[in-house]
Amino acid sequence: MGLTVDLNSDMGESFGAWTMGNDEAMLDIVTSANVACGFHAGDPNVMFATARIAKDKGVAIGAHPSWPDLIGFGRRVIHGDSPAEIERMVAYQIGALMGIAAMAGHTVTHVKAHGALGNVCMVDQDVADAVARGVRAVSRDLISVAMPGLCNERAAHKAGLPYVREVFADRAYEDNGALVSRKKPGAVIHDADFAAERVLRMLQDRAVTTASGKVIAVEIDTICVHGDTPTAVAMARAIRDRLTAAGVTLRPFHETLKV
Amino acid sequence: MGLTVDLNSDMGESFGAWTMGNDEAMLDIVTSANVACGFHAGDPNVMFATARIAKDKGVAIGAHPSWPDLIGFGRRVIHGDSPAEIERMVAYQIGALMGIAAMAGHTVTHVKAHGALGNVCMVDQDVADAVARGVRAVSRDLISVAMPGLCNERAAHKAGLPYVREVFADRAYEDNGALVSRKKPGAVIHDADFAAERVLRMLQDRAVTTASGKVIAVEIDTICVHGDTPTAVAMARAIRDRLTAAGVTLRPFHETLKV
Amino acid sequence: MGLTVDLNSDMGESFGAWTMGNDEAMLDIVTSANVACGFHAGDPNVMFATARIAKDKGVAIGAHPSWPDLIGFGRRVIHGDSPAEIERMVAYQIGALMGIAAMAGHTVTHVKAHGALGNVCMVDQDVADAVARGVRAVSRDLISVAMPGLCNERAAHKAGLPYVREVFADRAYEDNGALVSRKKPGAVIHDADFAAERVLRMLQDRAVTTASGKVIAVEIDTICVHGDTPTAVAMARAIRDRLTAAGVTLRPFHETLKV
Amino acid sequence: MGLTVDLNSDMGESFGAWTMGNDEAMLDIVTSANVACGFHAGDPNVMFATARIAKDKGVAIGAHPSWPDLIGFGRRVIHGDSPAEIERMVAYQIGALMGIAAMAGHTVTHVKAHGALGNVCMVDQDVADAVARGVRAVSRDLISVAMPGLCNERAAHKAGLPYVREVFADRAYEDNGALVSRKKPGAVIHDADFAAERVLRMLQDRAVTTASGKVIAVEIDTICVHGDTPTAVAMARAIRDRLTAAGVTLRPFHETLKV
Repeated sequence: MGLTVDLNSDMGESFGAWTMGNDEAMLDIVTSANVACGFHAGDPNVMFATARIAKDKGVAIGAHPSWPDLIGFGRRVIHGDSPAEIERMVAYQIGALMGIAAMAGHTVTHVKAHGALGNVCMVDQDVADAVARGVRAVSRDLISVAMPGLCNERAAHKAGLPYVREVFADRAYEDNGALVSRKKPGAVIHDADFAAERVLRMLQDRAVTTASGKVIAVEIDTICVHGDTPTAVAMARAIRDRLTAAGVTLRPFHETLKV
Repeated sequence: MGLTVDLNSDMGESFGAWTMGNDEAMLDIVTSANVACGFHAGDPNVMFATARIAKDKGVAIGAHPSWPDLIGFGRRVIHGDSPAEIERMVAYQIGALMGIAAMAGHTVTHVKAHGALGNVCMVDQDVADAVARGVRAVSRDLISVAMPGLCNERAAHKAGLPYVREVFADRAYEDNGALVSRKKPGAVIHDADFAAERVLRMLQDRAVTTASGKVIAVEIDTICVHGDTPTAVAMARAIRDRLTAAGVTLRPFHETLKV
Repeated sequence: MGLTVDLNSDMGESFGAWTMGNDEAMLDIVTSANVACGFHAGDPNVMFATARIAKDKGVAIGAHPSWPDLIGFGRRVIHGDSPAEIERMVAYQIGALMGIAAMAGHTVTHVKAHGALGNVCMVDQDVADAVARGVRAVSRDLISVAMPGLCNERAAHKAGLPYVREVFADRAYEDNGALVSRKKPGAVIHDADFAAERVLRMLQDRAVTTASGKVIAVEIDTICVHGDTPTAVAMARAIRDRLTAAGVTLRPFHETLKV
Repeated sequence: MGLTVDLNSDMGESFGAWTMGNDEAMLDIVTSANVACGFHAGDPNVMFATARIAKDKGVAIGAHPSWPDLIGFGRRVIHGDSPAEIERMVAYQIGALMGIAAMAGHTVTHVKAHGALGNVCMVDQDVADAVARGVRAVSRDLISVAMPGLCNERAAHKAGLPYVREVFADRAYEDNGALVSRKKPGAVIHDADFAAERVLRMLQDRAVTTASGKVIAVEIDTICVHGDTPTAVAMARAIRDRLTAAGVTLRPFHETLKV
């Protein structure tokens, strides 16, 4: 029986009069879209357009909650919130997308923390747990997107939430399963064909080879790709084409989890 | 059989470090709370606290959507949105409160537009219709709070939404059922006992006497009271006490509509 | 002696991670830049970059104040501010740009209201007067950009402020000197060569020909061009080239006014 | 010759419809006001009212810049800005207050970083230096308020800026001159008379006694008092009265530095 995987990407990151990324193109490539909820990007109109097009193209949508930081695009860590405050901030954003999704005839099926909040959730168990509790408070059916072996995976597990395990198509890995910091050389993969080949191998081997050459066994449910530049869109397309050519089935993870 | 009515008030209008009103006191008086959703006031923490206490005290909650206008507290009219943009802005805010309400173990059962948006919905059918469509897109069970004879009542009717009819305890009425502008003398009633007596009479007579002396027949499902000043809280308390003393049953309108 | 005129354009309208327009290209074309001050676009980093490059290229800068409306890009009219509130909102934004300009080694020499605020200032004397008082409160040397015959010109005159008279390169005119509404056919000129030729004629004739064919005499100190699309940049370039070819001197208006 | 000192307090921390503190009362007590600039609190109207009343009462004003964080009142640390971004954020806020101050007929004479930004400036030299450069870029005459021996004092010194040395009336000190964390017992002094007596002794001794009993010699130019609660106002009043009774002259520090 063939392999099945999901491709996910951040989307709906325009705001008001400003456009970011090429969502139309990406929604032809991915199977799950992480939709900005207004705190780092996205406004009700952008959210609606993203949900509507995703619905039309059969792409699943999830909330992409962030710290409130329009000016910093959610890429700055904000210190000082209590865990309860993080829970509520997450629940607010998920609910907001659910309201918009209902209007677009679509359904929110997953949650993935954005930017700085997402990065902190990989390494800070308290924050990861708070996010997971925020998700669970809204619905126990929402699927968390987690990094194998990191805090957000443990958080979803502890919270009793369904979750999927994600790898990044264009990022190098540390031996502990974390992403190599962008500040280090080789952290980001720029060659589309290389990235596509690597992703296929990870899927087939059910393993990630780290920057040091170590092989870590991982189950892979979804592959994160980017769409914020023309080059990123081309890489996402190359990955999709390579997987399809190799007989891999691309499908929203929420459909597979339900089976 | 005795009379039954609901008392509603705007609540959750604090923001971050700033406090407004006395929600604790008001939640002992009213039966329905209109909860700010972050656009004119309210933040996820304030919304949660309001929903949680309302749940504990048996007070129903509704979304209180506004134009995005923290600095103006939603009291300024913003021109230039298309009807579709208004729909989405409303759906976003209702959804956000639903996410928070779920966390608090409570349920959003109504919607009432705030401030400038609410005022425009009384007199501008296009905006009123857009708000009603925004409500309906999220859920056809959400109850609209409308002014008898004004645009928001027609909008709810046209949208096929359940709705309740509201009178204001402290405001004088024009002959067409609109509120007398605050700029005119006598627009606002300041005497608590007078207001309480007047509200009771409106309920018993199923009619409002306008500033000119005209009597308009109206069905009254809910009475709007305020809690933003100590005087306002005292008036709300006086109204509750007067109604109770007269044998009127105070009950969230969503329970009555369900019957 | 040859003709002299200024070319002005709105600039610094990026925000955080979002880019708008091609400021680098436009700063090679115009002689005065209207810099967004954070209320509809622009953030301290964008403002600094704009001021710095403008300084390097000898382009004058002015504040481009707006109603606070990031989500609507300042294109929505906000009703409900008192004149005094408008004055303060304007003074805040001018001061903010002055702080940033000082850091960039540049000087703020003019003010032009943005978007909806700018449009209202053409037709509402009270708002135009409030904006002029806000400008004057910060400095009596700041030059207002005004439309000949409209409210903002009268406001600058009444306030005793220096001002320049502006025409729009790509907009048709009503007989009263107002712009033809964008909703009407023919309101916007799309042909770059036609626009360039028309601008030259307006300068040489010291007159504008309206949509109805009427000729209005106007003194023209500055021509407004746009840079928000590649086509707009091309038109701005065509206008500059046509004027230069015809021997017109392009120079920041604040230099000419000082003479 | 008698002792002279300044009393400073954070002010103008209302926002839109929300009120904080009792600025009217505090402006009768202090000699310098740190005015919020819109990023954590304050809006153009609040800033104007604060500057105007301060002018009337002879109270000096300074900018109180913060990270952009209305919802967190600037009490949360935001990680991820480059030093240059911090410089610009500071310059923007100072400039904005200068614009408003000009309108109120007053002059901005000092700068004191607010909340989380202020706390970080005590212990992180890079951030403290960035803030100092932001101040200097706007004007080399602006006086920095610094903690003796901490990073913000070094930053002002390195930047060649005039600065004053501050002690906190109601906070216990560590042996290194830092404030005892609010999380520790005894960090905050609640007894007004005790605080007043302690402040007088610090002034007379030109020394602070730390929580451990160590005596640190410090020059004291200004004493920070609070006004956010009725108790805080009472303590500030007690301090002023005690100092006055002991013959200490209260005077804005910028007047003393000029001498």
